Amino acid sequence: MKIRTEVNINSEKQSNKLENLGRLLVKCPDKPGIVSVLSTFLHNQHANIVESSQYSSDPENGTFFIRIEFHCENLLEKATQIEKDFEGIADQHSMDFQFTYANERQRSAIFVSKEPHCLVELLWEWQNGDLDTDIVVVISNHEEARDMVEALGIPFHYIPANKDIRKQVEAEQIRLMEEYNVDLLILARYMQILTPDFVSRFENRIINIHHSFLPAFIGAGPYERAYDRGVKLIGATSHYVTNDLDEGPIIEQDVERVDHRDHVIDLKKIGRQIERRVLVKAVKWHLENRIIVENNKTIVFH
Amino acid sequence: MKIRTEVNINSEKQSNKLENLGRLLVKCPDKPGIVSVLSTFLHNQHANIVESSQYSSDPENGTFFIRIEFHCENLLEKATQIEKDFEGIADQHSMDFQFTYANERQRSAIFVSKEPHCLVELLWEWQNGDLDTDIVVVISNHEEARDMVEALGIPFHYIPANKDIRKQVEAEQIRLMEEYNVDLLILARYMQILTPDFVSRFENRIINIHHSFLPAFIGAGPYERAYDRGVKLIGATSHYVTNDLDEGPIIEQDVERVDHRDHVIDLKKIGRQIERRVLVKAVKWHLENRIIVENNKTIVFH
Amino acid sequence: MKIRTEVNINSEKQSNKLENLGRLLVKCPDKPGIVSVLSTFLHNQHANIVESSQYSSDPENGTFFIRIEFHCENLLEKATQIEKDFEGIADQHSMDFQFTYANERQRSAIFVSKEPHCLVELLWEWQNGDLDTDIVVVISNHEEARDMVEALGIPFHYIPANKDIRKQVEAEQIRLMEEYNVDLLILARYMQILTPDFVSRFENRIINIHHSFLPAFIGAGPYERAYDRGVKLIGATSHYVTNDLDEGPIIEQDVERVDHRDHVIDLKKIGRQIERRVLVKAVKWHLENRIIVENNKTIVFH
Amino acid sequence: MKIRTEVNINSEKQSNKLENLGRLLVKCPDKPGIVSVLSTFLHNQHANIVESSQYSSDPENGTFFIRIEFHCENLLEKATQIEKDFEGIADQHSMDFQFTYANERQRSAIFVSKEPHCLVELLWEWQNGDLDTDIVVVISNHEEARDMVEALGIPFHYIPANKDIRKQVEAEQIRLMEEYNVDLLILARYMQILTPDFVSRFENRIINIHHSFLPAFIGAGPYERAYDRGVKLIGATSHYVTNDLDEGPIIEQDVERVDHRDHVIDLKKIGRQIERRVLVKAVKWHLENRIIVENNKTIVFH
Repeated sequence: MKIRTEVNINSEKQSNKLENLGRLLVKCPDKPGIVSVLSTFLHNQHANIVESSQYSSDPENGTFFIRIEFHCENLLEKATQIEKDFEGIADQHSMDFQFTYANERQRSAIFVSKEPHCLVELLWEWQNGDLDTDIVVVISNHEEARDMVEALGIPFHYIPANKDIRKQVEAEQIRLMEEYNVDLLILARYMQILTPDFVSRFENRIINIHHSFLPAFIGAGPYERAYDRGVKLIGATSHYVTNDLDEGPIIEQDVERVDHRDHVIDLKKIGRQIERRVLVKAVKWHLENRIIVENNKTIVFH
Repeated sequence: MKIRTEVNINSEKQSNKLENLGRLLVKCPDKPGIVSVLSTFLHNQHANIVESSQYSSDPENGTFFIRIEFHCENLLEKATQIEKDFEGIADQHSMDFQFTYANERQRSAIFVSKEPHCLVELLWEWQNGDLDTDIVVVISNHEEARDMVEALGIPFHYIPANKDIRKQVEAEQIRLMEEYNVDLLILARYMQILTPDFVSRFENRIINIHHSFLPAFIGAGPYERAYDRGVKLIGATSHYVTNDLDEGPIIEQDVERVDHRDHVIDLKKIGRQIERRVLVKAVKWHLENRIIVENNKTIVFH
Repeated sequence: MKIRTEVNINSEKQSNKLENLGRLLVKCPDKPGIVSVLSTFLHNQHANIVESSQYSSDPENGTFFIRIEFHCENLLEKATQIEKDFEGIADQHSMDFQFTYANERQRSAIFVSKEPHCLVELLWEWQNGDLDTDIVVVISNHEEARDMVEALGIPFHYIPANKDIRKQVEAEQIRLMEEYNVDLLILARYMQILTPDFVSRFENRIINIHHSFLPAFIGAGPYERAYDRGVKLIGATSHYVTNDLDEGPIIEQDVERVDHRDHVIDLKKIGRQIERRVLVKAVKWHLENRIIVENNKTIVFH
Repeated sequence: MKIRTEVNINSEKQSNKLENLGRLLVKCPDKPGIVSVLSTFLHNQHANIVESSQYSSDPENGTFFIRIEFHCENLLEKATQIEKDFEGIADQHSMDFQFTYANERQRSAIFVSKEPHCLVELLWEWQNGDLDTDIVVVISNHEEARDMVEALGIPFHYIPANKDIRKQVEAEQIRLMEEYNVDLLILARYMQILTPDFVSRFENRIINIHHSFLPAFIGAGPYERAYDRGVKLIGATSHYVTNDLDEGPIIEQDVERVDHRDHVIDLKKIGRQIERRVLVKAVKWHLENRIIVENNKTIVFH
């Protein structure tokens, strides 16, 4: 699968656009003047704000969140100094903050079991220049996806898994995450449960796709249960993984209409389309640092 | 509120169209030849099939369902004979069946508590000639809707209710259902729970609107719980009432997108729009005899 | 129709929330530091920014647009001074700007012809406390809506209209707009064409609902033409009125699915639902000063 | 790309299900008794109706359309006799009719230019067992897709094209259509105009995807024009190709929401998702003989 002519053009354009693009995420107690402080700081660094989104849980004594996207000449060279300069402001206003740089691409790992549709969609978007990440490794408890992954030059690791050997499986997975220096884990229909120890190593950095409209049909067999209940819409949910199964912060959801003629096999087919687009959206937003997690919910700055 | 000029025109057109229109619903074991038997029977009665929808749970040894809409000169005069003639066929093929006649309008009662939006929508559709029923009575445990209902010439009964006096409340409600000869009960945000005794008197004839995307958020406070969970879509569900709270056969569902900025009050506003249209659709389909209940699920012939 | 108990509560809540809420819309050449200038200005006025949205047509030499919602103690008393103080900044950065104050409610007129559904929806939202405006007059070229409008205490003026008497009709309408001191004109299915002279008096202050998905089916009979073309979705479009028929800046659009069984009368019924919600959304956004018109397109800050 | 383990299982299941499945499409003047005639005929052939959908343009003197899906033991052996027997009935009732047999798979050709997304989606659905056709050849005026197509064992023909050599290009294409015995042509973003001569050879057998919500933005550059007009939804349309550019019978349409921040490049990205699903749906319905063309419109029996 080598449809890369246009891709390369896209990537070049993309990287020009991303060069010197920075993002600042801030969380702090809400009070008058914060936007002024931040925008003045950036202006003094000769940075131009190109996008800014904010949210306050309550203008009086609530928590304030802001995501600023800015452009700045020679950004990477100045980054260390900018971050250092910012520390005083952060202290003064009790800010949690994070600077990220668009052309320091995040490194992603994809975990997949037997059903390949979410993996295929992610790879396709990535080839197309639409996923701003390096996919550095694919891990599966089945061999089926190997050829497709390796054909794209991505390392594929087969790690058979079941609940009895969970500990040793995760040890190997963690070793690979370290070896490949992974920032983001994408569970693209990976049907194994992760232990609290594993999850805690990647807080708010594991994105799962659950094949139901959560909180309906938590756990196994959601399409079967949707069929039994006779729902008229089925859905999919992308969320960060926490230690409560399918209870993590929801990033995105979508649904499609079904009717009485749709058996479980039809729900699965229709559902695959939903899962594909819902997972890809969540991953894109994460890679663009658009998501803040607060109180097991997400603030997504579109 | 007297915007009835166009309405009357619509109603006349409507009743011409509905005159001599009959519907036959059949459920029986699936086997070859059923459609042939039914269509030949209707043809022999000089009836012309204008719409026909069918569904088989499984072509081999499953259950077969069909809804036929037919036109027949002087239908009401011939109805008794047609139904009598049909009995032999029904016996032979183990059919459950029901004939209905579009211009024998069903009589509906609406139950409402404080929130008027679903009631308003139903009344509006009805005035517009788009709800093919007689709304014969509105019952409420609050006085708020009285003026609006009585202005349209519909009797309004105020029956204060709480769980301690449920038995006597329902006795009065049942008396009214009998007095008004009610076919269909519409719970348009009626916030009282009905007892099994009440429900059993109106099997598959009570339609409720629940303000969530069932089976998510069964029971009280669904918008509050949707807010707490951080869902990205909220929904509403119309269903037949059974003795399991919010577990009855689902007729229709829909959703709207929300985001982190939407507080509970916003979810309620957005939700009202969904509730209105989801309830009206369910009521229309019921009135057109488009719904068959089977195994706590609905077959809806659109 | 007197369902005002809850309404009054809502309105009170609403007006508390809106008291001391200001909005600043700015358009200027894009360059670094503008957000800093604006936020610092507001901070110095002791105003707290509660919402801020911006858009740049191009970060390099483009046009910059921003909408800031802020809270400020005793805002109305300080407003004149704030606006005066701002002038220097505006001059320096070549800014077009507008301050508005949420509890100085805009005054709206609704124009309607025979079909009442959009009028009904607007009145309903308004009664519900969800349209932040005073509806000061309804004008119609038919008498049908009079009772409904007057029952709510709103003046109703019947002005028969046709293209031969357009000039004198508009003279009377303009007189009423002045008498009632109208800020916003809402064409809620008003089926008369307005002259350039009339339109020029209310630039970007006349909102129309067109019953198609523009630019498809410009002009008369869109549902008939949609039926003839066999489209699978029908739509509605709200837009500001300009002198090019149905060519003004689009504010909002939506669609619904239809199929081959839907005749023109069905398209109209389905379409009414779309028109209602699309018009209401546009009006709300206008009233909240969320819309900026630029190059015959709208920037809508949600 | 060899993810075929599950695929083969699916295909087997599929072909079992499709074996002995026939479809009968009929168009005739509407009159009482037609359903009876058809269902009795099929019953006498020992065929069991598993799905039936009908539509009448007008129950009085209109045109009647029906699609019947039936199951019949040893169908292919009996097909010739069934069709012959049916001729008398067809004559008697002035029926146009067509019998098709689900396991006589149609042979499809895909035409594509530079943009591969629709081709990729079709190939993916096909690999997945969800497109019930043999893709026998892919033709392109560019070389980009060759590797991807040939990797799946499908012949790929590169035929450079421009309007000056249209005649010789089409001669070669027609030769290939004959050589590969093609039933259906799918234009998966093939950006060359076909001549009337070419189109007339494949009446109602060429499906195109147009990248706008027709009839808006007929012709070239629809995303650019959508951007210029400032629409709030963009769409895609699949239709049969006729000699009027983008005016053929519409099969399916869908839309997605966009806003002022979306530049042409963003509209194209969003549009690709719509194009993919809208084209695949149209192709599936065609392959299942669900579409009847009448008066430049489609009746689609879902």
